[in-house]
Amino acid sequence: MRANNRINLGVLAALSSNAFIAQAQSPQPNFIIIFADDLGYGDLGCYGHPTILTPNLDNMAEEGMRFTQFYVGASVSSPSRAALLTGRLGVRTGVYGTKDPIGNKGVVFLQNSLSGLPLSEVTIAEILKDQGYETAIIGKWHLGHMPHLLPVNQGFNYWYGIDHHQNVPTKANTNPDEAKPVNNNSQVTARRRWCSLYRNDTVIDENPDMVYLTKQYTDEAISYIRRNKDKPFFLYYANNNPHTPLLASPGFLGKSKRGLYGDVVEELDWSVGQILKTLKDLKIDTNTFVLFASDNGPWLTQSQRGGSAGILYEGKNSTFEGGMRVPAIAWWPGKIKANTTSTALATTMDILPTFARLSGSDLPKDIEIDGVDISDILLHNADNVRNVVYYYINKNLYAIRKDPWKAHFITHASYSPGEPVKHDPPLLFNIDEDPSEKYNIAFQHPEIVEDLIMEYVKQSGIVPAPSEIDKEIL
Amino acid sequence: MRANNRINLGVLAALSSNAFIAQAQSPQPNFIIIFADDLGYGDLGCYGHPTILTPNLDNMAEEGMRFTQFYVGASVSSPSRAALLTGRLGVRTGVYGTKDPIGNKGVVFLQNSLSGLPLSEVTIAEILKDQGYETAIIGKWHLGHMPHLLPVNQGFNYWYGIDHHQNVPTKANTNPDEAKPVNNNSQVTARRRWCSLYRNDTVIDENPDMVYLTKQYTDEAISYIRRNKDKPFFLYYANNNPHTPLLASPGFLGKSKRGLYGDVVEELDWSVGQILKTLKDLKIDTNTFVLFASDNGPWLTQSQRGGSAGILYEGKNSTFEGGMRVPAIAWWPGKIKANTTSTALATTMDILPTFARLSGSDLPKDIEIDGVDISDILLHNADNVRNVVYYYINKNLYAIRKDPWKAHFITHASYSPGEPVKHDPPLLFNIDEDPSEKYNIAFQHPEIVEDLIMEYVKQSGIVPAPSEIDKEIL
Repeated sequence: MRANNRINLGVLAALSSNAFIAQAQSPQPNFIIIFADDLGYGDLGCYGHPTILTPNLDNMAEEGMRFTQFYVGASVSSPSRAALLTGRLGVRTGVYGTKDPIGNKGVVFLQNSLSGLPLSEVTIAEILKDQGYETAIIGKWHLGHMPHLLPVNQGFNYWYGIDHHQNVPTKANTNPDEAKPVNNNSQVTARRRWCSLYRNDTVIDENPDMVYLTKQYTDEAISYIRRNKDKPFFLYYANNNPHTPLLASPGFLGKSKRGLYGDVVEELDWSVGQILKTLKDLKIDTNTFVLFASDNGPWLTQSQRGGSAGILYEGKNSTFEGGMRVPAIAWWPGKIKANTTSTALATTMDILPTFARLSGSDLPKDIEIDGVDISDILLHNADNVRNVVYYYINKNLYAIRKDPWKAHFITHASYSPGEPVKHDPPLLFNIDEDPSEKYNIAFQHPEIVEDLIMEYVKQSGIVPAPSEIDKEIL
Repeated sequence: MRANNRINLGVLAALSSNAFIAQAQSPQPNFIIIFADDLGYGDLGCYGHPTILTPNLDNMAEEGMRFTQFYVGASVSSPSRAALLTGRLGVRTGVYGTKDPIGNKGVVFLQNSLSGLPLSEVTIAEILKDQGYETAIIGKWHLGHMPHLLPVNQGFNYWYGIDHHQNVPTKANTNPDEAKPVNNNSQVTARRRWCSLYRNDTVIDENPDMVYLTKQYTDEAISYIRRNKDKPFFLYYANNNPHTPLLASPGFLGKSKRGLYGDVVEELDWSVGQILKTLKDLKIDTNTFVLFASDNGPWLTQSQRGGSAGILYEGKNSTFEGGMRVPAIAWWPGKIKANTTSTALATTMDILPTFARLSGSDLPKDIEIDGVDISDILLHNADNVRNVVYYYINKNLYAIRKDPWKAHFITHASYSPGEPVKHDPPLLFNIDEDPSEKYNIAFQHPEIVEDLIMEYVKQSGIVPAPSEIDKEIL
């Protein structure tokens, strides 16, 4: 990789005044990814929710670019996070699971996992660290809890957060038919459980009070930004809300008309506002790219404790749009045109090549990247950077989108014991015209179906890496 | 009514210097209502549609107040328009129909109608005309086509528009299962039909080319505003889009990723932008209140030629939220706080008392008004001006919302031959927490059910006026 990090700036300047000028005019931008957990496409004000108020994220969209067709790499947590950090599909990294507890066809690392994201994978943090960036994760990891697999071994100089997802069955979240949100009593029941809070590679609290986690993350993020304001930095802020159990701090509890789920989203919105305010206060906003997105769609079977995909069909653990299309807002004052809506196709896997380009890095050698550089969308509002999106459940290719057309080759009902259903011919939808996937028009467009079958055959040539998530204590 | 219109200003000033000062500081504001036709809650960018781009309406929302819980008086055209203009429910005005062609349980004035909005009703236009306002309707009337019932006899000094809705069965809109939007050929088939274009009480085109209607309306509206910029005026701009048949002018045809429905909405959005630009150009924006809303929810049985209610359930001709909750944006620079989202309950029937208040008018005497003055929401962001909403199909009370609670006493499947279903006990939803009306929680809240039954009994005391829509040539 190129070694034009800031430490070498003086040397480079001595070698080449052109390089010096380029460096002086375009300092390496800072990067922040704020990743929500199970937030649905329809759960923010600027994506149409009627009673969840998110003035900070709405404002971020007004100052930046709101994506309406932004996808994740998988519709459950661990595979989605691996795809974000590596720019690669789970079928390549091995971050997928094939064991099928009833209904949970998309599988994640659990407490009995022996593995995680392989160390051989190259993360965004590793690329940027090699470029001289300070790198940090604040929040949820969920890519392996064995000591050698923690974030500090995956390119992150700093970690404050939890190793796992915080979902342990409690009275509050075992009855999916319960329409009422979790009440205060069950909040108390749920708040203390097995989930360790780390600083770097050290457990600092084996039993953290998760009610205050968003406040703690926010304080940590602000403090991190302040400490590193004079260096290029990469901050991956993986807030673990609004995943169940729903936990809002006292200032937000009971605030939202939407109930506890809304309280939690509104606290997350507050946190985003604090981050952006800090960047403005420090006058580094015009040199900081911020992306807000969610790891997958809403957990619909949690009923009122889960979110909503709005106009989209289905949610988490599904390859319908509601599972894999997420709210996504990009913000970079002066660089990204304010108040822009982009309908371009983009994915979380595009972030790695985009950050590589914007930081002046080369891509990792001899590694197949599924993402593409989307800086032309961000900086020039291009609409045609990628035209294909793949929808996987574990190592199985369920669906392909090409331009407006989406073919479902396999579907399943999320979190249900039913078997996946193969479709031959595939279901075909025009997603631009029919975002709710209501009208199967395969019969009317045999030539499109044919083309998507060709894409399917092509993509099916990928030999799956062995599953890391299947490696468990028996 | 009070006679403080502008003609009397000198007299009033002579009588009272206080009155003069009040008048000078607060000139009577202009009022514009832009009413879309069959536009769904989820069909605008600022309400979350992924591929319909509406920068002008989004911008209007950023400069004004976006309502997320704004209701119409009925979920089909004529009764909804009568409710808007009179501030009264159809059960009181008689603008409802009981005849039930298959599935069409909410009935409108058709070509064989003998009646319309009774002349005894007091419209917003009549109230404002009495206050010295210039009054105009540009667009669709749909409240009776007999000569004595036309807008010029209902308080409007000026009319340019069509008497009826433009929906006549064509090849393009008779097959509800057809997934593809109407193509160019069927657009040509549909564009010429029985539907008269009026100027005042004169038919100026018996066979107007409806493809250009939005452009013509826009030109007419701009010209009207320019003519009247120095007087207080009321403009009711009832654009008849995106009702089927879908007709976009050549500059918009094929423009939207959403297909023809999107083209039509984007042309409507353009038109709204032209109106607001005119107000700014003339520097009368700070003295002009503009409301944008839709007459009812999306016509879902038109499949891709109909819109979407987004997160809400059902559409036009239904008393679920998708039928009666509509996008609504209020705009008044300097008076309505910019960039505000209001979750307050409000209805189109509230416009009449609000305009009366803002123009200094008294309400009509001895007439029961179902609307309430919502100027405290508009000017002071109040949240509690009304707490009850009624949902009628023709003269039948189907549902009541009180605060977040909504009880369905009767439901039916829209545009289906099935009989309405009575619910005893009623279905109960917490709409703030469950906007999609998924979780019936009547069993958990018997005391709320009891309270809503009391409201039902109370409201059922209204003796229905005789139906005007039932009066037809046999």
